[in-house]
Amino acid sequence: MPDLIPRDLKFATRVSESLNRQAFMQRIGAMLSNVAPGAVDVTLPNDPALHQQHGFVHGGVLISIADSAAGYAALTLAAPATGVLTTELKVNFLRCAEFKRAVARGRVVKPGRTLSVVRCDVFGLKEAEEVHLLTGIVTMMHVDGITD
Amino acid sequence: MPDLIPRDLKFATRVSESLNRQAFMQRIGAMLSNVAPGAVDVTLPNDPALHQQHGFVHGGVLISIADSAAGYAALTLAAPATGVLTTELKVNFLRCAEFKRAVARGRVVKPGRTLSVVRCDVFGLKEAEEVHLLTGIVTMMHVDGITD
Amino acid sequence: MPDLIPRDLKFATRVSESLNRQAFMQRIGAMLSNVAPGAVDVTLPNDPALHQQHGFVHGGVLISIADSAAGYAALTLAAPATGVLTTELKVNFLRCAEFKRAVARGRVVKPGRTLSVVRCDVFGLKEAEEVHLLTGIVTMMHVDGITD
Amino acid sequence: MPDLIPRDLKFATRVSESLNRQAFMQRIGAMLSNVAPGAVDVTLPNDPALHQQHGFVHGGVLISIADSAAGYAALTLAAPATGVLTTELKVNFLRCAEFKRAVARGRVVKPGRTLSVVRCDVFGLKEAEEVHLLTGIVTMMHVDGITD
Repeated sequence: MPDLIPRDLKFATRVSESLNRQAFMQRIGAMLSNVAPGAVDVTLPNDPALHQQHGFVHGGVLISIADSAAGYAALTLAAPATGVLTTELKVNFLRCAEFKRAVARGRVVKPGRTLSVVRCDVFGLKEAEEVHLLTGIVTMMHVDGITD
Repeated sequence: MPDLIPRDLKFATRVSESLNRQAFMQRIGAMLSNVAPGAVDVTLPNDPALHQQHGFVHGGVLISIADSAAGYAALTLAAPATGVLTTELKVNFLRCAEFKRAVARGRVVKPGRTLSVVRCDVFGLKEAEEVHLLTGIVTMMHVDGITD
Repeated sequence: MPDLIPRDLKFATRVSESLNRQAFMQRIGAMLSNVAPGAVDVTLPNDPALHQQHGFVHGGVLISIADSAAGYAALTLAAPATGVLTTELKVNFLRCAEFKRAVARGRVVKPGRTLSVVRCDVFGLKEAEEVHLLTGIVTMMHVDGITD
Repeated sequence: MPDLIPRDLKFATRVSESLNRQAFMQRIGAMLSNVAPGAVDVTLPNDPALHQQHGFVHGGVLISIADSAAGYAALTLAAPATGVLTTELKVNFLRCAEFKRAVARGRVVKPGRTLSVVRCDVFGLKEAEEVHLLTGIVTMMHVDGITD
């Protein structure tokens, strides 16, 4: 397990205020459901407006919340007055499944000053069941002088 | 260059009808702008409702149109009565830039009966200029008995 | 956690005999150090003949053992008389570090009949310490009529 | 096409001297076959000692030369007295094929001061034929104070 020590004690406020400024995340209904050092969860209610042609939530939407969860997981460990940008991202879709809510979990694998590597997983929740929909890896770049 | 011979001569109709059934693509305003064997372009007008916290179109939205362009590029070469699903996807973000429209270009690198490998690139268009925003690779799985 | 039930009870023998037939794995000195359903470890002693220009083991060598561990992890769950091929692979290098031995751990995330998704991680071992060098995801395709 | 202007006019010498210092590249017989700004080719003769269990060159070996070609393509554009490290890499295997020589082509898609994004492709050569074996994307990090 990596050492996950926040360099800005207001990390939870930063993440929450930043998500509020993301018009697209608001538009699709994404919400923060967990913020801890190196770990952020983003939850999304199912909505037919987000579907693809087979009646499932569009893969791009699942990637969007995975990217946000991963980026904010990196941001919890960022220095004050710096921001993060996604450099690259890779995901595997594991299965299609119906769900009431999806939760994207970003977990920092390697925090860094320039780059942070973050694992992301998306699960579909339906009653008591949790189904693994997507797994991936995201590289975030830390950038001085931008704020999230 | 791979051999790109369509196995279903109605490929352009299939792609266009499928995109019309994708609620999420409709929601964000994505449109087909090119359909040829092994090559599909999807165009997206800029819209503040799709932005992230720095005022650029959310990376997840750019990935969504890249995924659609790549998937439909594979679908142009699919056998009749089969569909395609995204298995995995990897993208690199090359730069942030403002644009009026973005165009995602999916180009089949290796067509297959089970898997097709597709390159995707997204460009931002602003007056005469074209800026390379994202490059990636998508693996599509061909599935019998689903229709797109 | 996925259900990891072997379909061929001779899975450990298959993996071990296959690794013995891999000239390149023999050449670099890679050895099996763990074989269980859905989980395979491959260990590599450090050897200056495998170094790159900065005196560390070449990244391609670390990827090679990660690929082998991932592929064999998928093979432990394959049906009899089928083999596996790597379809695609993505790795992030987390840090450079000296080590006496490296161990690559392949763990199946999603077993399948056509495709299996496998996580892989490589650690450097030096006395009591274990350093995380690389994390990645590998997609394996199951192919009838080839044997590993 | 990106602007590919070398910042160190001795770029070809740097690349060639660095490859000579890579024990592993020497060991497998990899040779430079093209060095230009933003573009490097690495050629590998086929050798049974590099095979996997089905009699083809091991995927990890093909990735190794792809990684080297990509890294050196980035190095041709690096500032003097800086080096490059592979941050992450993703490849898709397109087909298995026999060949006499393989050539890995690294082409810079986006040069940068901190990160460069490079496309890599490996082709198998057999008489007059050229077969596309692998396509991928590599992210290189530019690091001050290391030399390649």
